[in-house]
Amino acid sequence: MEELKTRIKEVGTVLPGNVLKVDAFLNHQIDAGLMQRIGQAFAARFADAGITKVWTVESSGIAPAVMTGLALGVPVIFARKHKSLTLNEGRYTAEVYSYTKQVANKITIAQKYVAPDDKVLIIDDFLANGQAVSGLLAIAKQAGVTVAGAGIVIEKTFQPGRSALEKQGIPVVSLAKIKSLANGQVEFAEED
Amino acid sequence: MEELKTRIKEVGTVLPGNVLKVDAFLNHQIDAGLMQRIGQAFAARFADAGITKVWTVESSGIAPAVMTGLALGVPVIFARKHKSLTLNEGRYTAEVYSYTKQVANKITIAQKYVAPDDKVLIIDDFLANGQAVSGLLAIAKQAGVTVAGAGIVIEKTFQPGRSALEKQGIPVVSLAKIKSLANGQVEFAEED
Repeated sequence: MEELKTRIKEVGTVLPGNVLKVDAFLNHQIDAGLMQRIGQAFAARFADAGITKVWTVESSGIAPAVMTGLALGVPVIFARKHKSLTLNEGRYTAEVYSYTKQVANKITIAQKYVAPDDKVLIIDDFLANGQAVSGLLAIAKQAGVTVAGAGIVIEKTFQPGRSALEKQGIPVVSLAKIKSLANGQVEFAEED
Repeated sequence: MEELKTRIKEVGTVLPGNVLKVDAFLNHQIDAGLMQRIGQAFAARFADAGITKVWTVESSGIAPAVMTGLALGVPVIFARKHKSLTLNEGRYTAEVYSYTKQVANKITIAQKYVAPDDKVLIIDDFLANGQAVSGLLAIAKQAGVTVAGAGIVIEKTFQPGRSALEKQGIPVVSLAKIKSLANGQVEFAEED
């Protein structure tokens, strides 16, 4: 997606440890118009997949996920993150490790919002190690629902997220693919 | 907003302690179309206020805030919540106490996304004690920016949030006003 790549080039900043900061338009300040066009792009790519729900994880996934749900005309669920969880009743749960924050969270989705015939599209802001998406896949497995694919705003192709998901049979569509952040420079890979 | 009140009546559940659960369409599962109409309603109410930014707090405020930003054509900032914060550099911070979760969080906004001539519209999912909005007001004060008003999806008029904000000169627009949750029944007040 050219507009997205241009914005990453213009306002993204590369931090040590292969961190790309895009809090100018995605994870702190949000460009709502760009989010809408991102949602429309995901909806177009998954238009024939029979999606019934969009799933994401709070907080940075919410804006692109809601715009995707709007474009597809389906509800969005954001999994809640918990440091610890004493009551699991009525919830599907999975563990997600954040390499950036070096902390493990439980993520949960209320069972009552999952229907057995759901076809889920997972949306997230970043794909690096694939931890968040894998957590949602674990929940989908518990719930016995189908995951039609994962829509990722920014993928780091030099990290193992995509191969981990594709091994589980999940098609991945990324709108910007970054193959290197070496020397503080953003280098894009070919788009999907 | 009739559509919102109908949804609250149909799928909201009242829990002990005057808690109204609306995770069927607002804070866990999200009805993206309803969020868009909510955003358009806030945009219409503040159309002449010269808004330059929408502010909210993660996570439940993000969906209505992004839709408001989309309708107004301005960027959205979601303040980040932190249990503790060791590095304050480059950030405005305020303390927010959650009565529901009985926990204090720091919320922060990066200084670089705040311009001195900003006119801010604060959006949040609930107004009860007004803690989250007051935290954003404290940040606005530090930053020296004007807050044009607060747009609230659901207000509990039997709690002191509105009067706390109006004492600070902040106009409050709520799309659904609840005057009582006694005996597990939702009773609405007149709309703004």
